[in-house]
Amino acid sequence: MAESWPFVDTFEPNFRPLVVIELAKGTKEETIEWFAKRIVDKKANGGAQLLVKPLVTESGGEHIYLVGASHLRLLLGAETVGLVKECSDNSMRTFTYSSRKTFKDFADDNHNFLTIAECQYIIKHELENLRAKDEKMIPGYPQAKLYPGKSIVRRLLTSGILVQIFPLHDREELKKLRHSWYGRVKVGYQPLDEIRCYFGETIALYFGFLEYFTFALIPMAVIGIPYYVFAWEDYDKYVMFATFNLLWSTVILEVWKRICAIMTYRWGTLLMKRQFEEPRPGFHGVLGINPVTGREEPVYSSIKRQIRIYLVSLPFVCLCLYFSLYVMMIYFDLEQWALDYHEANESNFSSLMLFVPSIIYAIVIEIMNRIYRYAAEFLTSWENHRLESSYQNHLILKVLVFNFLNCFASLFYIAFVLFDMKLLRQSLATLLITSQILNQFAESLLPYWLQKRHKERMKKRMCSLKTDTDLSLVEQVNLEKEMGTYFGTFDDYLELFLQFGYVSLFSCVYPLAAVFAVLNNITEIYSDALKMCRVYKRPFAEPTANIGVWQLAFETMSVISVVTNCILIGMSPQVNALFTDSKTDLILTVALVEHLVLAIKFIMAFLIPDKPRDIQIKLAKLEFESLEALKQQQMKLAAESLKE
Amino acid sequence: MAESWPFVDTFEPNFRPLVVIELAKGTKEETIEWFAKRIVDKKANGGAQLLVKPLVTESGGEHIYLVGASHLRLLLGAETVGLVKECSDNSMRTFTYSSRKTFKDFADDNHNFLTIAECQYIIKHELENLRAKDEKMIPGYPQAKLYPGKSIVRRLLTSGILVQIFPLHDREELKKLRHSWYGRVKVGYQPLDEIRCYFGETIALYFGFLEYFTFALIPMAVIGIPYYVFAWEDYDKYVMFATFNLLWSTVILEVWKRICAIMTYRWGTLLMKRQFEEPRPGFHGVLGINPVTGREEPVYSSIKRQIRIYLVSLPFVCLCLYFSLYVMMIYFDLEQWALDYHEANESNFSSLMLFVPSIIYAIVIEIMNRIYRYAAEFLTSWENHRLESSYQNHLILKVLVFNFLNCFASLFYIAFVLFDMKLLRQSLATLLITSQILNQFAESLLPYWLQKRHKERMKKRMCSLKTDTDLSLVEQVNLEKEMGTYFGTFDDYLELFLQFGYVSLFSCVYPLAAVFAVLNNITEIYSDALKMCRVYKRPFAEPTANIGVWQLAFETMSVISVVTNCILIGMSPQVNALFTDSKTDLILTVALVEHLVLAIKFIMAFLIPDKPRDIQIKLAKLEFESLEALKQQQMKLAAESLKE
Repeated sequence: MAESWPFVDTFEPNFRPLVVIELAKGTKEETIEWFAKRIVDKKANGGAQLLVKPLVTESGGEHIYLVGASHLRLLLGAETVGLVKECSDNSMRTFTYSSRKTFKDFADDNHNFLTIAECQYIIKHELENLRAKDEKMIPGYPQAKLYPGKSIVRRLLTSGILVQIFPLHDREELKKLRHSWYGRVKVGYQPLDEIRCYFGETIALYFGFLEYFTFALIPMAVIGIPYYVFAWEDYDKYVMFATFNLLWSTVILEVWKRICAIMTYRWGTLLMKRQFEEPRPGFHGVLGINPVTGREEPVYSSIKRQIRIYLVSLPFVCLCLYFSLYVMMIYFDLEQWALDYHEANESNFSSLMLFVPSIIYAIVIEIMNRIYRYAAEFLTSWENHRLESSYQNHLILKVLVFNFLNCFASLFYIAFVLFDMKLLRQSLATLLITSQILNQFAESLLPYWLQKRHKERMKKRMCSLKTDTDLSLVEQVNLEKEMGTYFGTFDDYLELFLQFGYVSLFSCVYPLAAVFAVLNNITEIYSDALKMCRVYKRPFAEPTANIGVWQLAFETMSVISVVTNCILIGMSPQVNALFTDSKTDLILTVALVEHLVLAIKFIMAFLIPDKPRDIQIKLAKLEFESLEALKQQQMKLAAESLKE
Repeated sequence: MAESWPFVDTFEPNFRPLVVIELAKGTKEETIEWFAKRIVDKKANGGAQLLVKPLVTESGGEHIYLVGASHLRLLLGAETVGLVKECSDNSMRTFTYSSRKTFKDFADDNHNFLTIAECQYIIKHELENLRAKDEKMIPGYPQAKLYPGKSIVRRLLTSGILVQIFPLHDREELKKLRHSWYGRVKVGYQPLDEIRCYFGETIALYFGFLEYFTFALIPMAVIGIPYYVFAWEDYDKYVMFATFNLLWSTVILEVWKRICAIMTYRWGTLLMKRQFEEPRPGFHGVLGINPVTGREEPVYSSIKRQIRIYLVSLPFVCLCLYFSLYVMMIYFDLEQWALDYHEANESNFSSLMLFVPSIIYAIVIEIMNRIYRYAAEFLTSWENHRLESSYQNHLILKVLVFNFLNCFASLFYIAFVLFDMKLLRQSLATLLITSQILNQFAESLLPYWLQKRHKERMKKRMCSLKTDTDLSLVEQVNLEKEMGTYFGTFDDYLELFLQFGYVSLFSCVYPLAAVFAVLNNITEIYSDALKMCRVYKRPFAEPTANIGVWQLAFETMSVISVVTNCILIGMSPQVNALFTDSKTDLILTVALVEHLVLAIKFIMAFLIPDKPRDIQIKLAKLEFESLEALKQQQMKLAAESLKE
């Protein structure tokens, strides 16, 4: 097949396959030829100037291509995407090809200057920025329209010709990473820098946050254990615990911002400039003039989108919320029924039965969350947002509101309407533990098992084929292309967010919550690591400087937890005993304390700098240098102009 | 004198005096010569390349110099300070000399392309950036040490050799501005664009805010009047008013951000890049290495500053707060005494006497505010902040906290401790009106009168002197150099901030507050305009993109006003009538409503974009263009590199 492409130099000596492109079966020959030509074509001709090599499989019929790039091409690509690397003087600077000699570990023959994840990110960026010139359609597919400037890869994806693009695993590196990550039993930190080198910043930051959050939970867990051991379970000793909770939830989020800045500075993403955001692949509209770029491209009326959001999505979300509350009421009926049953025929079985409604409800909550998640995705993509960031924000908002209500409404109801601390405790424990077990199972173990079975079948099939020198690569590609796709850190953060809710909102009535959260998170680190390394296709690295909207979500939760904890303190018998005369005084005092705590919280958030001092100085230094360079340039110009 | 300076070309044909430099009497000749040489010296030699002309006065002994610049020099300076001007295609762009032809109204002989205020700002910037090279001291003053990179003008100022630098008024422009601003009685907007051209963005933005705030108060005033006219004064009809107050205070601040963005986009300051901040003039320390710039310059240990802040300033502020509360208590004693007196001998006189304590207290508050202001300035400058912005933030924080407590503590005490709505109303009215009258008097009328008297004396003296062709300029400089200095918009914003407090915190018990505020602000516009045009020296223009920390201060006040208004609503007889059974329910309901309103407020602040859509698009367009240009450049480089 390759012989028919005179322009593809498949005998490039150092061709190293980095990214796999899978085209649909039966893709027309002319399309493939055109696409491959565009990929390898010179930059000056509007190509991506990458290397392509078809993967020769025995079965045939499959169109799989390996993409690589020359070392020089990758270095120039690193400049285009704006990578930030460490210089010889330990400062972080945006990489440019002309200043390449000043960077640490740079040598013209050092092919490890860029990590493989970075190379793959560069190739992905170059492929996505391969744009139509004067083509009106994809050759061979008249219905797949193109217009000047349209990303070819995105059109190929939306028209189904391109099945997938994914980066290849590097088996040796992966083995090393697995070993240092979860291969041996050890106490200590995760190898975050190695994870970042292999999977990119977004995923490394998630694991960093997970680890930080687990450590942050330990003081809570340590305080929680004696509550359990010494049977301080009479629900009135929790004032101290709630107070601690208040401080804790504020402090950990502020500290995280600083830790995050330290990490992302080291990784260079803190300094990376935001790239101009292109329309997301699914965005459609009629051709018009984009007011920002001045280019002809699909535009979609903002009013139409607003109508879809406010007249369809919003009512739908409200309906779902109503339904969730309705299910909650059924749960309370069940709970009452179980209680009646227990009272009528008291036995071991009946006291076990007391937990059944909670467990059923927890399972139902999980199912509803998952169904709603699909509905929210469908609706948000139907809203037709132009930018991925706007799509993500609307999706996250929809999902967060529903999940928050779905998970916590019953607890709020029990705490502040029924005032039943015993039930609250039991309900909280059941919800937390059940959801953790379900999550761990559905998220990692089940896919791992499915994948393992599939792999064995594949292996058997492979072994029956003849082998040649390249089989291991063919085998690897064939295995990896069937693996599931990792859809980003959304679900992982969501899980942590809900866990944070369980721990910070009500944990004072059930101090063991933090203990369970710590235990869950330790296994979560391992199961997530397993998931990343063995279950899913390798994801493309995504540079990122912070955990984005999740920081805001966690901060909002911590504000809500101040309110709930203050009310719980106010409801405690201890505090009530201080205000025997007047309930009004009690409520006023609680309200006053709550306002003070909230005020202190906001002042603290304002006063604690988001970046540690040394990072601030380093950033200021860079800014000063660039301003100074600009000034020098202007001075030179001025001196010349004034001489004339 | 000028003859002794061979390097000063005093016969520059188009010399237009823009800025006046006044040196101390008896400044040594060698110092003057050195300083003038540095000002006119070529950029390449480290000079400012400006024009200097001594002002020949009859009396002699005074060293006054006029500074100007060639047209070309000003254009290059405009690039250095990063001015943003309108292009021929109506977009706003950073001015560069090389792209000068693309700007609207640019022509090589159009000397009005830059406004005079901009020219003066450029000259100030160039003078301040005149830096020592290898001089170890100011020639003739061995005690005035210099080190490489130290701003010469700042050292001259701190060592008292340089008395002042100020920009000259442009009498013709000023006349036009005065006419369109306050010269004729008219209903309508202020000529903000003209104000901005003459006084710069900071001052124009203050007047813009003052105008906006006055318009925003009108709905409140309109609702307030019927309350007074129809004698709805039984303090229980104010629920509606308080509710309206809640919405109003949130909305106006959000809308202001958008209006501010529209204005500053038009003025170009929204797009101006922040310049690197130099140490403020008063900053001192031992010579060390600045970690950011790597230069040798004075450094001052942050720990020492923290000690000064927390061990001296903080206790002092607390002491002042305590003193202010003590004075408040004396006021309540007085109030009690007046009440007793009124009850004992009821007469017209005694009922007038009822208002006397409030008036005395209002005057005392004003006096305390002003004394504290000086103390705060002294303390903050003693804290030795390196940057002007940090100095300003600490000063504003100190002053705001004290003024807030000083002005509003008595009102809070009356409302929420004494529960005396009648006294609250009387106290609020007296405080508001007295402080407005005092402010108007102390701020504008008194200085105006003093200045007028001084001017007449000066004129008499002038007339007795012989006249020559340049006398009018000499006269002008001599008059202006004796005028007071305008110390920025701090006091003006502070006044508005306290007014906003009176209106939004408690106005529901005294709806006429908004009416008085509107009346005050209308006269305030005129008296502030008078102050700017006739009383003070022309200030240097300061580019600014927003009202800075005041936005935050007003927003904080509006949060506090939500709390007070909710409590006032809860205390109203109307609402109390709804909850006759249980006071607890009432308080819980109020707390719930308050939390809801605060939540809505924060969500609104989050949802309403800070910039209107068209400004967002324009900004995005600029960003896109610069990214596109960068990409093109990289593409060219890449194509070249890959060709090799």
